[in-house]
Amino acid sequence: MGKLVEEFNSYRTKMNERIMDSANTNIKRFLALDTTSYADGALDVKTKEMLGLVASMVLRCDDCIKYHLGKCHEAGVNTEEMNEIFMIANLVGGSIVIPHYRRAVEYWDELCTG
Amino acid sequence: MGKLVEEFNSYRTKMNERIMDSANTNIKRFLALDTTSYADGALDVKTKEMLGLVASMVLRCDDCIKYHLGKCHEAGVNTEEMNEIFMIANLVGGSIVIPHYRRAVEYWDELCTG
Amino acid sequence: MGKLVEEFNSYRTKMNERIMDSANTNIKRFLALDTTSYADGALDVKTKEMLGLVASMVLRCDDCIKYHLGKCHEAGVNTEEMNEIFMIANLVGGSIVIPHYRRAVEYWDELCTG
Amino acid sequence: MGKLVEEFNSYRTKMNERIMDSANTNIKRFLALDTTSYADGALDVKTKEMLGLVASMVLRCDDCIKYHLGKCHEAGVNTEEMNEIFMIANLVGGSIVIPHYRRAVEYWDELCTG
Amino acid sequence: MGKLVEEFNSYRTKMNERIMDSANTNIKRFLALDTTSYADGALDVKTKEMLGLVASMVLRCDDCIKYHLGKCHEAGVNTEEMNEIFMIANLVGGSIVIPHYRRAVEYWDELCTG
Amino acid sequence: MGKLVEEFNSYRTKMNERIMDSANTNIKRFLALDTTSYADGALDVKTKEMLGLVASMVLRCDDCIKYHLGKCHEAGVNTEEMNEIFMIANLVGGSIVIPHYRRAVEYWDELCTG
Repeated sequence: MGKLVEEFNSYRTKMNERIMDSANTNIKRFLALDTTSYADGALDVKTKEMLGLVASMVLRCDDCIKYHLGKCHEAGVNTEEMNEIFMIANLVGGSIVIPHYRRAVEYWDELCTG
Repeated sequence: MGKLVEEFNSYRTKMNERIMDSANTNIKRFLALDTTSYADGALDVKTKEMLGLVASMVLRCDDCIKYHLGKCHEAGVNTEEMNEIFMIANLVGGSIVIPHYRRAVEYWDELCTG
Repeated sequence: MGKLVEEFNSYRTKMNERIMDSANTNIKRFLALDTTSYADGALDVKTKEMLGLVASMVLRCDDCIKYHLGKCHEAGVNTEEMNEIFMIANLVGGSIVIPHYRRAVEYWDELCTG
Repeated sequence: MGKLVEEFNSYRTKMNERIMDSANTNIKRFLALDTTSYADGALDVKTKEMLGLVASMVLRCDDCIKYHLGKCHEAGVNTEEMNEIFMIANLVGGSIVIPHYRRAVEYWDELCTG
Repeated sequence: MGKLVEEFNSYRTKMNERIMDSANTNIKRFLALDTTSYADGALDVKTKEMLGLVASMVLRCDDCIKYHLGKCHEAGVNTEEMNEIFMIANLVGGSIVIPHYRRAVEYWDELCTG
Repeated sequence: MGKLVEEFNSYRTKMNERIMDSANTNIKRFLALDTTSYADGALDVKTKEMLGLVASMVLRCDDCIKYHLGKCHEAGVNTEEMNEIFMIANLVGGSIVIPHYRRAVEYWDELCTG
């Protein structure tokens, strides 16, 4: 596992554990919804993770992008497909997305060579 | 064709024609990219239109939502699938998306009964 | 009840009923969270509705603004307090909020004279 | 004066008067800043109005766009220049800006033929 | 004082001093408004800081979140109240807020143990 | 060249090269548009870079801000003009822009003393 992936996962795991201790019931329900919404259903996991990724890119949240890049990789999205997602994100979100796209490419490269 | 769909299509067509007259070369290139990016490729049209829809919903652009709802309908997205897209959009974008979701349901109903 | 308030409530009620028919379980859970999060708790309803309003204003969602203006009115927010919320929303969100502020003032006036 | 321009100006004037009655001191200071920031200075009015317009377009506020289109027209921006502003707004803000661009073209046409 | 709090305060203080040297009159007026708007008035400081925090969270500005977390702590917001603010921010802003929520929890913990 | 400028340019150059290897045709066309849209035309390069900067500031993208600050510096924008752009960005985008404004001032200082 590459350095960027490890740093992201490690901080996320640490804080999610802290949140499970500190959060109230509604927050825990919200986080549970965040998990179940990406489960296999009428749409498969791969499609849903691509949806989560493009939404994260146009809203320009680097951590959310990293999370869904990891999930897309697990779900078998290949690089040619990923480039078409990147294009739609750049197009819809505009050139303001480009710096996030650069970091996404760097992270995707690490996932693919990891 | 229902009233909402017709009004949307009619204004969009009128202004796209006006834009083809008035826009400069770069704008025309940008609009051409907007078309070709949703064409069949490594990802099929249905998947790309779902990506365009979820991006439009989290960015809360009613006209963009209507456009991609129409394209999703043409591409064969069914209502069960649409509900899962709606859920991801509401979840990622938050309750601020709900009024747009209401209007999307109204438009989708019209598309489905049209 | 004034015209703006009635139109808003009427469309919202109609579509919420339609959504209760058409939505999937996760969407219904999300909408339930949207209700329970504003219930009396460590913070009272008035404070929570002011939080919901300022969030809606900086994110510039007119329907969300109308909804929370109505709830703030029910919870006893007065006009002097409302002006301080409006100021924080304009300040944090910027002059891009001003057109939404204009419409909020119009709606608040209707609530107060209704 | 065309219909779109008249409707926009009329509502804006009415609500600005109402706001001058109802707003608190800080809001009035904020609105005063909104005026003085576009005054002639190190940058001229025309440049500042173009800055205000592009900011309004990428933030996708139709009323703000209309306001700055009117001011750009008064300041002597021509259609060729306007198209280059439109292009930068579409590019930076992405295709999500396109519906606002359509309405901007319609409003600009009215200003130019008015 | 914890490390995150110290780093944030130190950079903020350094740059605010630099800005007082370099900014023009309008910017200084804007920054003055940013201070006076949170002063005790019809709403008390605690309520206003909670409003500033929720606005900062849904707009996803980590530095603004840190600033208002510090001010909320000074104003006596307790952790149970903070969790209800966090919930409203996550709900309104959506799951895209979660990474900012994680960092907010980390910062709040430091404030509470500092 | 100062440290912030060098770090920004170095990462940007590295990733742009990687993107030229990995991107698909549409992405390359989009990036080409991103270049040609800022070229001298009806509006000169200086004006266009100021437009790009204000758009980047209100959308709060630090990397985009750095890029356009560099270009504005090359195009001869002086500090008095820059302060008026900063004011419009703070005003339109709101106090949520202030942390980005701080970092912009730091970067601009480095450009001016570099």
